Amino acid sequence: MNTTPLATAQPIDLPAARAQIDTVLTDFLNAKTDAAAASGLPRDLAQAVRRHLQAGGKRLRPLLCVTGWHAADGHGDTIPLLRTAAAVEMFHAFCLIHDDIMDNSEMRHGRPTVHRHLAADYGVGHSPEQARKLGADAALLVGDMALAWSDELLHTAGHPSTTLAALHDVIDLMREEVIYGQYLDLTSTGQATGDIEQALQIILYKTAKYTVERPLHIGATLAGADQHLLDALSAFALPLGEAFQLRDDLIGAFGNEATSGKSCLDDLREGKPTVLIAHALKAADDTQARLLRTLYGNPRLEEDSAATLRTVLKATRADQTVEHMIADRFEHAVTALYEAPIPPHVQGQLRHLAENATWRTS
Amino acid sequence: MNTTPLATAQPIDLPAARAQIDTVLTDFLNAKTDAAAASGLPRDLAQAVRRHLQAGGKRLRPLLCVTGWHAADGHGDTIPLLRTAAAVEMFHAFCLIHDDIMDNSEMRHGRPTVHRHLAADYGVGHSPEQARKLGADAALLVGDMALAWSDELLHTAGHPSTTLAALHDVIDLMREEVIYGQYLDLTSTGQATGDIEQALQIILYKTAKYTVERPLHIGATLAGADQHLLDALSAFALPLGEAFQLRDDLIGAFGNEATSGKSCLDDLREGKPTVLIAHALKAADDTQARLLRTLYGNPRLEEDSAATLRTVLKATRADQTVEHMIADRFEHAVTALYEAPIPPHVQGQLRHLAENATWRTS
Repeated sequence: MNTTPLATAQPIDLPAARAQIDTVLTDFLNAKTDAAAASGLPRDLAQAVRRHLQAGGKRLRPLLCVTGWHAADGHGDTIPLLRTAAAVEMFHAFCLIHDDIMDNSEMRHGRPTVHRHLAADYGVGHSPEQARKLGADAALLVGDMALAWSDELLHTAGHPSTTLAALHDVIDLMREEVIYGQYLDLTSTGQATGDIEQALQIILYKTAKYTVERPLHIGATLAGADQHLLDALSAFALPLGEAFQLRDDLIGAFGNEATSGKSCLDDLREGKPTVLIAHALKAADDTQARLLRTLYGNPRLEEDSAATLRTVLKATRADQTVEHMIADRFEHAVTALYEAPIPPHVQGQLRHLAENATWRTS
Repeated sequence: MNTTPLATAQPIDLPAARAQIDTVLTDFLNAKTDAAAASGLPRDLAQAVRRHLQAGGKRLRPLLCVTGWHAADGHGDTIPLLRTAAAVEMFHAFCLIHDDIMDNSEMRHGRPTVHRHLAADYGVGHSPEQARKLGADAALLVGDMALAWSDELLHTAGHPSTTLAALHDVIDLMREEVIYGQYLDLTSTGQATGDIEQALQIILYKTAKYTVERPLHIGATLAGADQHLLDALSAFALPLGEAFQLRDDLIGAFGNEATSGKSCLDDLREGKPTVLIAHALKAADDTQARLLRTLYGNPRLEEDSAATLRTVLKATRADQTVEHMIADRFEHAVTALYEAPIPPHVQGQLRHLAENATWRTS
């Protein structure tokens, strides 16, 4: 499998793939908008999903799906691949829309979240509390619809029926894993503990499997990958996914609003059970532990208390510990990558992607 | 197709089918509970879905799915049919769990709704408001999981891949329709109007297509039905589905808690834009209209105001108008049923089901 024909040894053009995937999504949602209007149904749902997608996003998962296809030496018509990648991004829209409702997030990528936008649209003549509830309920349905549309994109991608059956196996797993991850995250939030194992379990389900492993598997499955290749991709994907989420947690605690588009107080106010906080609590003395428990997850946290919290995170060296964990996982991922039976140019591309995901600042 | 072999001319044993479908669901959820425990994942999700399903329900949709299969002269192994019917009920669990969150419903079938139950489970050490939010968020994820599991039931039902592709077409439509119906319902609630057409559009999407037409289509598709038969089933299903929902609205306004398991004030407090209210507003004089607008959809409505509201519904003869609409739709459904190219014993069964759905009291 390492003897790649010259024609496919070109670097994969990920920016072009991204543009093509976005075109699939936009065309699909425009068709949904038109169909709704033609049937006297609300266009709001397709428009809300389109607005959410157009606000931004790294398109990491669909691009990993494309890369997984190349890793398994995929060739021929790329339309089914691009529609499948678009389905993966549409599924992610479902996750984020529901996630933003649960987190009460106001903004994403510098724009109002779906539930905030719908609250404003439907709020006229309602109390602020009623408008908030109506926006959350409407967004819940928009999220449900994104999930239904994700499947429709997949079912109309032109897959041979045996390929579709294999894809469903991976996708069913992916959904279950990410929902379990979200549930663990939700039910642990607000109970700051030094339980590093639990924090790592959440990362495994919520991010490592969902964001990296399964998208690669989906693309590879589409190209007919065997179990050996899927396992090799997992050996790269899981440590990389952990590194990606650990970086996210650091950015959430220390990053700044201008580069991430998210308020830097959101994560601290939310109080998710991150590995960062678990390490800080483990290393904290009594005073530090009291500060961590009082400030982390306090929904009324302001800049001055956030600064105190960050001082504690640094004083306990939790930030350094997490930086070491990131570096360690990056090394493991890269080692596994070069042991994987995939074409060298795809290895190069995945290494580049791993570097960006691990060492990004937003 | 009307020349049915003697062996299948037996009445379909729907109680037996119901028991078999419930066994599929229970076995599936027990396996999910065990698998979660084995992976250190929360068992709460599978348990919450099982508790929701065991609390009750008419199993109307999966039984219509079974009946649709017989209508299309289905024969042979019934395992794929029963798993598909179970998938339809699991999808319905997703709908109801999300619906109960949106409606803030406390009870269903005389038991706490999923979000109320989870609020109690996770509420310890939280304020009532925090517990309520945590319960709603956890239930949102349980609903999402029910949807994912519905698909898994379908994908592991043992369908030939061409059958699965045909099923996906119907199921994708069904999901889109019911979500549009819910969205219309949500965004119209609280604005009592005399708009009968809008109220009928909501019924079409939320109930007639979702509850009757698509379940029949799913079963019939599984048995290889052609478009002619699907259309004939629609001609029966759509008026019946309207009658079913109109009956539901009457029970919601006038029924009693002992027989329906739902508080009789819930629907009146919620203020959904029903055909019943639209007709009342259309026929109301100024005083009656003022009462309708003030009382209907008032979340603090008590028994004495509910009695006033019911008096207005009767004085405007809205209840009688809706009864006439139900009778009219029942007649249309039955006429279409006897014109449909389906075996006589299935016609008999569907007529029986139509009678129960239309003339029930809870």
